[in-house]
Amino acid sequence: MEPQTLSRGDTALTIAGRTFGSRLILGTGGAANHAQLAAAITASGTELVTVALRRVGPPSAHSEAPQPLTPGAADAAPPRRYPTGSILDVIEECGVGVLPNTAGCFTAEQAVRTARLAREAFGTDWIKLEVIGDEDTLLPDPVELLDAAETLVRDGFTVLPYTSDDPVLARRLEDAGCAAVMPLAAPIGTGLGVRNPHNLALICEHANVPVICDAGIGTASDAALAMELGCSAVLLATAVTRAADPVLMAAAMRDAVNAGRAARLAGRIPKRHLAKASSTFEGMADL
Amino acid sequence: MEPQTLSRGDTALTIAGRTFGSRLILGTGGAANHAQLAAAITASGTELVTVALRRVGPPSAHSEAPQPLTPGAADAAPPRRYPTGSILDVIEECGVGVLPNTAGCFTAEQAVRTARLAREAFGTDWIKLEVIGDEDTLLPDPVELLDAAETLVRDGFTVLPYTSDDPVLARRLEDAGCAAVMPLAAPIGTGLGVRNPHNLALICEHANVPVICDAGIGTASDAALAMELGCSAVLLATAVTRAADPVLMAAAMRDAVNAGRAARLAGRIPKRHLAKASSTFEGMADL
Amino acid sequence: MEPQTLSRGDTALTIAGRTFGSRLILGTGGAANHAQLAAAITASGTELVTVALRRVGPPSAHSEAPQPLTPGAADAAPPRRYPTGSILDVIEECGVGVLPNTAGCFTAEQAVRTARLAREAFGTDWIKLEVIGDEDTLLPDPVELLDAAETLVRDGFTVLPYTSDDPVLARRLEDAGCAAVMPLAAPIGTGLGVRNPHNLALICEHANVPVICDAGIGTASDAALAMELGCSAVLLATAVTRAADPVLMAAAMRDAVNAGRAARLAGRIPKRHLAKASSTFEGMADL
Amino acid sequence: MEPQTLSRGDTALTIAGRTFGSRLILGTGGAANHAQLAAAITASGTELVTVALRRVGPPSAHSEAPQPLTPGAADAAPPRRYPTGSILDVIEECGVGVLPNTAGCFTAEQAVRTARLAREAFGTDWIKLEVIGDEDTLLPDPVELLDAAETLVRDGFTVLPYTSDDPVLARRLEDAGCAAVMPLAAPIGTGLGVRNPHNLALICEHANVPVICDAGIGTASDAALAMELGCSAVLLATAVTRAADPVLMAAAMRDAVNAGRAARLAGRIPKRHLAKASSTFEGMADL
Repeated sequence: MEPQTLSRGDTALTIAGRTFGSRLILGTGGAANHAQLAAAITASGTELVTVALRRVGPPSAHSEAPQPLTPGAADAAPPRRYPTGSILDVIEECGVGVLPNTAGCFTAEQAVRTARLAREAFGTDWIKLEVIGDEDTLLPDPVELLDAAETLVRDGFTVLPYTSDDPVLARRLEDAGCAAVMPLAAPIGTGLGVRNPHNLALICEHANVPVICDAGIGTASDAALAMELGCSAVLLATAVTRAADPVLMAAAMRDAVNAGRAARLAGRIPKRHLAKASSTFEGMADL
Repeated sequence: MEPQTLSRGDTALTIAGRTFGSRLILGTGGAANHAQLAAAITASGTELVTVALRRVGPPSAHSEAPQPLTPGAADAAPPRRYPTGSILDVIEECGVGVLPNTAGCFTAEQAVRTARLAREAFGTDWIKLEVIGDEDTLLPDPVELLDAAETLVRDGFTVLPYTSDDPVLARRLEDAGCAAVMPLAAPIGTGLGVRNPHNLALICEHANVPVICDAGIGTASDAALAMELGCSAVLLATAVTRAADPVLMAAAMRDAVNAGRAARLAGRIPKRHLAKASSTFEGMADL
Repeated sequence: MEPQTLSRGDTALTIAGRTFGSRLILGTGGAANHAQLAAAITASGTELVTVALRRVGPPSAHSEAPQPLTPGAADAAPPRRYPTGSILDVIEECGVGVLPNTAGCFTAEQAVRTARLAREAFGTDWIKLEVIGDEDTLLPDPVELLDAAETLVRDGFTVLPYTSDDPVLARRLEDAGCAAVMPLAAPIGTGLGVRNPHNLALICEHANVPVICDAGIGTASDAALAMELGCSAVLLATAVTRAADPVLMAAAMRDAVNAGRAARLAGRIPKRHLAKASSTFEGMADL
Repeated sequence: MEPQTLSRGDTALTIAGRTFGSRLILGTGGAANHAQLAAAITASGTELVTVALRRVGPPSAHSEAPQPLTPGAADAAPPRRYPTGSILDVIEECGVGVLPNTAGCFTAEQAVRTARLAREAFGTDWIKLEVIGDEDTLLPDPVELLDAAETLVRDGFTVLPYTSDDPVLARRLEDAGCAAVMPLAAPIGTGLGVRNPHNLALICEHANVPVICDAGIGTASDAALAMELGCSAVLLATAVTRAADPVLMAAAMRDAVNAGRAARLAGRIPKRHLAKASSTFEGMADL
């Protein structure tokens, strides 16, 4: 992976004391196969990918390396390149960090239990905390989420909660000791882009931890906009893994996040109701 | 200038048989000084910049190189680096092509006369045709614009008209023999971004010449969106030259145009009303 | 039809010296049958409806009343209530004025000829001028439109041109002597609502004749928004005639136009980034 | 107050078994004076207004009628028309119901205490529950809000909670026994309109209690849009009380709510990308 170079005057993304050269985090769900996922990870320039424990399986299922739990997967001969057939092989090959998540949990209790299993399975106390309130929208449940976050922070986890775009909830998660807040752009997998730029801007204005826009990104301009609103990073999965060409879309997202970050730092021109010529022609030759 | 590499499966931008490695065209108006403009041009990766003849002056004003017409400019000692003090020195130094424009013209007659002077002054028959209808909005006059375009095409010019986002006018300009059409995102200098994505998409769907989004871009996500809608390139000036840090914004725009182009080619996911999980958890371990 | 009462401080809509109690104009195309159209006209409160000459037929086709040209219509026994089977019977019954239009014309010449036939057929020199540029979008052709408008104004017509939302073209139509300008919200029949509020606002700010938003309205809030942006009236057809319940939608549009007009006159609160309490609690009892 | 008549096929708004002829609820904060407020209430057609207990004062402060707590108000001679100088006189005169609210409360405990005082003061167990999380945005605190709602429902209150536009929180409030849910359009007093139509639509699709859009409405089209998205009613205050002409804006809001409701029931046309003519001209005379 080619190292990202910082824009002039920029600082690296730092979460809980750990520094990242890329401001893009990739989800691994939805990829057609491991080879394509590996290529997309590399093209994206990311240094951190998130994996659902429930896709990889609990630590008890592992001998040395985690095993997939997909039914039937054990029967098929794993492709050479990824000996155990696990997504963790892909991640290791790509040389990126792994951020386990609690996708598929609907209560604080489930999420806390899953986070503890993930700590054992992945050997990290970082957790992307998802507590879903609703199967149709996969939106987070604010009460269960805050409850789980408080428990996990007490437990020594570095908690990155997937949250709604509610500025008050974001502040409460920060107050609870979360290392970042991860408000959505739109519901998971909808590709609707930033539904409420005003809320995202309010969150960014008030937060003292990194704000990572998570979920709902559909295309490159969505990712750029999230960064322009003040987000520190963007997390996305299906926008890349389910694009017609995931590798090309991964490159698009890498450029879009860099573009949005640089545009934020560069100080955009104000919006005007009426035109303003780039040149004035007063005093110039009348042709 | 570092050469742009094409995305997988992409082809280079070709206008009237001439190929460009970058899909960003930069306007030169509004820059604080020549050194900053040169740095922004380089950072943007552009291969083509547009210059108003009225800023440079008619050919009669030149001995060897064009002279600036800005009052008082002759009195000031030109900086060493740009011996004649002209913007053309900057362009030559940067090694980019020049696209003269007819900014400041309000009738077809004025614009045609200005285009002819520009052909002599710049030694090119390419012209960015602007015929403005209104000093408050600097919006193009559709009737005068089409009239001037027809005359200039007959005259052998390669005509790139700055137009409204009207799909019918765009088609008529194409039918008149223009080498590209350049619909606006929003009025010049407003930074409002793409006011009418629907019209821009309609123009791109029907055009058989390159569609270059010209004017109104404010920030990186605007440029990415224009490309995602199907534009072949983006032209912008004040979004870069009047940003707080023009060089950083130029780099942002370079990345944004690349991101939008790649996202368009990569085939984005469809928008959904309800969520779609990136992973399904059926058959997985109940943690 | 129940008379509309003016809001406090409002004045009636006046076009070319003729005053209207309602700011809603209804198109008649798309209605399932005459009885439903009559009910919708009444529910809308409109005082003016527009009819395509090509639907009614040229004056040579009439003996006393215009005849429909729909193939086969002559075979069917006309319903009692509308003896000639013509839409003109509906209009007469409803007691509203008729504004003939040139729908279906693609050149200035066609439109001028159609307008002259309409003058004979309908006994009015008012004409809603449509010159379409494109069968896919039905968007107006700016050059043919202006040409036809100039001819018809010279010919003594009261010209109400259906135009794009281009502020420069709107001004040129006004300068040509049109009695109103009728910019679109979106292409005919799309129901997309106001695609470019900025352009519509610019047109309203600069116009000295009534601005009537014509085409593209989908629902009530679209009509209200058009009025809030400064339009003097709204013209719509399929939003009513093709709604599931045309009569109820006609009532909705009547209320929406009144609401938008009153809101414009009432002077809305400014938009704020942060909250502002309706009450302040300083000095109040601490409960 | 003129009675509202229902649209064809519509049913009256019913909250907790109580039926209302109007789907507009008015807040009383921000009015310049009592006479203007009374006129606005009447013009709006509302049958229910909301009042902050903290503006009226706790029951202990009343002898027969509630007294204002505004410092100095006791010194000024109350105007004849409103003998006690209290907003309650206005409400009584207008003959509308009163919905006390807990504005100004920042914790569940405060809100519960305030609701109990309001029950005594106003003689009603209906309460608009506000628990604010943040002085800058006045956005609701999701955790404290749900906590207070659960307590008050147990206590026998009819609870109408002011909430964010989070569909999961809305469902949890409904599950807790609230009689309605009141999601915001935008933060209080911002006039930004419906920031996230997608969330509002999701809430309306899933709710089994009335959804009342509360806060952030700026103008008539905002109110119409909220109703079109499926809301059962709209609550607003400063959009009317702080408009340049509150009485006219109240009438605009009355019409806008009716328009949006009727448009929702009438079944709008689908949105199309390309045009659809209202008439077809096949088989018609070629003019």
